Amino acid sequence: MKIDGTHYRSIWFDASDHSVKIIDQTRLPHFFDVLSLTCLDDVCHAIRTMQVRGAPLIGAAAAFGLYLSVKEGNLPPEEAGKLLLATRPTAVNLQWAIARMLDRISEESNSEAKNRTALATAQAICEEDVSNCTSIGLHGVGLVKEIAKAKAGPVNILTHCNAGWLATVDRGTAMAPVYQAWEEGIEVHVWVDETRPRNQGASITAWELGKQAIPHTVISDNTGGHLMQSGQVDLCLVGSDRTTYRGNVCNKIGTYLKALAACDNDVPFYVAVSVSSIDWDSDEIPIEERHSGEITSIQGLNSQGILDTVRLTPEGSAALNYAFDITPSRLVSGLITEKGIFSADEPGLARLRGLLNTD
Amino acid sequence: MKIDGTHYRSIWFDASDHSVKIIDQTRLPHFFDVLSLTCLDDVCHAIRTMQVRGAPLIGAAAAFGLYLSVKEGNLPPEEAGKLLLATRPTAVNLQWAIARMLDRISEESNSEAKNRTALATAQAICEEDVSNCTSIGLHGVGLVKEIAKAKAGPVNILTHCNAGWLATVDRGTAMAPVYQAWEEGIEVHVWVDETRPRNQGASITAWELGKQAIPHTVISDNTGGHLMQSGQVDLCLVGSDRTTYRGNVCNKIGTYLKALAACDNDVPFYVAVSVSSIDWDSDEIPIEERHSGEITSIQGLNSQGILDTVRLTPEGSAALNYAFDITPSRLVSGLITEKGIFSADEPGLARLRGLLNTD
Repeated sequence: MKIDGTHYRSIWFDASDHSVKIIDQTRLPHFFDVLSLTCLDDVCHAIRTMQVRGAPLIGAAAAFGLYLSVKEGNLPPEEAGKLLLATRPTAVNLQWAIARMLDRISEESNSEAKNRTALATAQAICEEDVSNCTSIGLHGVGLVKEIAKAKAGPVNILTHCNAGWLATVDRGTAMAPVYQAWEEGIEVHVWVDETRPRNQGASITAWELGKQAIPHTVISDNTGGHLMQSGQVDLCLVGSDRTTYRGNVCNKIGTYLKALAACDNDVPFYVAVSVSSIDWDSDEIPIEERHSGEITSIQGLNSQGILDTVRLTPEGSAALNYAFDITPSRLVSGLITEKGIFSADEPGLARLRGLLNTD
Repeated sequence: MKIDGTHYRSIWFDASDHSVKIIDQTRLPHFFDVLSLTCLDDVCHAIRTMQVRGAPLIGAAAAFGLYLSVKEGNLPPEEAGKLLLATRPTAVNLQWAIARMLDRISEESNSEAKNRTALATAQAICEEDVSNCTSIGLHGVGLVKEIAKAKAGPVNILTHCNAGWLATVDRGTAMAPVYQAWEEGIEVHVWVDETRPRNQGASITAWELGKQAIPHTVISDNTGGHLMQSGQVDLCLVGSDRTTYRGNVCNKIGTYLKALAACDNDVPFYVAVSVSSIDWDSDEIPIEERHSGEITSIQGLNSQGILDTVRLTPEGSAALNYAFDITPSRLVSGLITEKGIFSADEPGLARLRGLLNTD
């Protein structure tokens, strides 16, 4: 997507110095900084501290992390994979990307070939992600069009967290249909849940929509229910960090509450998800518990234009910080994937899997 | 309730200088400041800027505002009432307290008697509020006891916003059963929704529970659904700014989402409400829209120990800030009032009203 006229991906290989470049998402929306990752440690740190986040982007970053580790030559690839896997527990893309990288690297016998293959595979993962997100946009835009036809004014879409360009390599999952609709001239307006505790909505989704000049309004996470009750939401679109073969959707904490409100108010609730985020083997999803400091404090820009962290809670009050929740399949209207839209249940996902096997 | 061993109400008349004292809630939890209100303007400002908030406390503050106005003698009481009524639109207590004050003041013919009666009525409103909250605690504690009997470990109670001591004159509405249970030796633990955008949970509820040494954990507003799904919530207790004769409950934005999750997970969802917060005439509730700056920025304590406001959203992104939502009666397990527990529907409220009329 574009920033002030220049196209950027959220991650890319820089051939000039053999580094991997990322946009530091912990500094958005206040500062746009490009970071250079040059070793496995840099990548693990970037994933752990959420300089990069979003299931598909984490997968791409991990792939580049393995490439950098192979280039360094200090660790067997399997060990590097374990370190990367330990950075975040919930996104299944991490497992998927690492397994694919290890598989391809193991096919090569000498270090030069391993190096070359690792880079090529990481780059292929990125290209496929862009292509998948574009397809998700093309499949999902139909839902937006249908609503636009039936009403006057903009299609009001509520989203939670960031499942946009910056959660993927480009284009986004949940935001891909929005970008597609906008490019096709359909009037849209996005309700952006701020998404405490890390505020990816207020800081990242709002910023990337703003850069594409797409109308949007930031709301507290508490607001979506009232908006749906009062007919101000036409469609909910969210991403997923892991969707199981049964259609249960793990996504940023609070997604479940919006799905309940959507169900209670007959608002369609769609999950946009790349096939790489689907867990075909298990319905068990580990829920990451993050540092309580993300609840007790918050980062923002102070009046001196400096990023600062302020304390919100009293000293001595405990805080608990689960990062994800699970939206049961019964609350999901459908899964928008790169292969089309499928029902969020075992038959729907089996049909999707069948399409993959015949590709 | 107590702060470091000393008992405080949230509002009181100071005979030494004929002023009204409040605890400045915009500075909590970081600073405990007592403010002196000496004129109508001071009271209007305190309510509008939420130095005092919470439906019952707003009613008590407005009563003292009318007293101060009568003492000033610059405005007819009816005009002062209009100014007070305009400070916050949703809490029905404001209307109720002003109407009662005007009624009593109008019975007196000379300014000295009006002055004396205004003060006595404001003080009576405070005393009744304390008594009502104590009764709510005594009626509500039965629910806590019942759960405590059926399980090992603490009774886990989730609350939203602040319906504690600091939302009332003393003791609280939703927190009254918690304080009662704690004093009776029942093990409790409170999940405190931080309650964006103004964070009354993180800043006020956590602080007042901490001062009473009651175990509690602050969570983001997004977390309650997951906690209920995973069996970590035994009971939801919230307050209400206005409950209609049909049992529809207006409370801090986001309450509806928790009620949906409670219903979806068979967690009892009770609303603690003083009779003065019930609207017997209308089912229409005006929803206050507050300044968008409460979404785009947040206040906290910086590393220099100074209260500072930091910006969260990108420049150019709009924000919308509804302060309340409505939880439909079908999601409410019951209303805990000073007269007992009633079903949240027309028959239940009619039964309650019948008790009032025969008092």
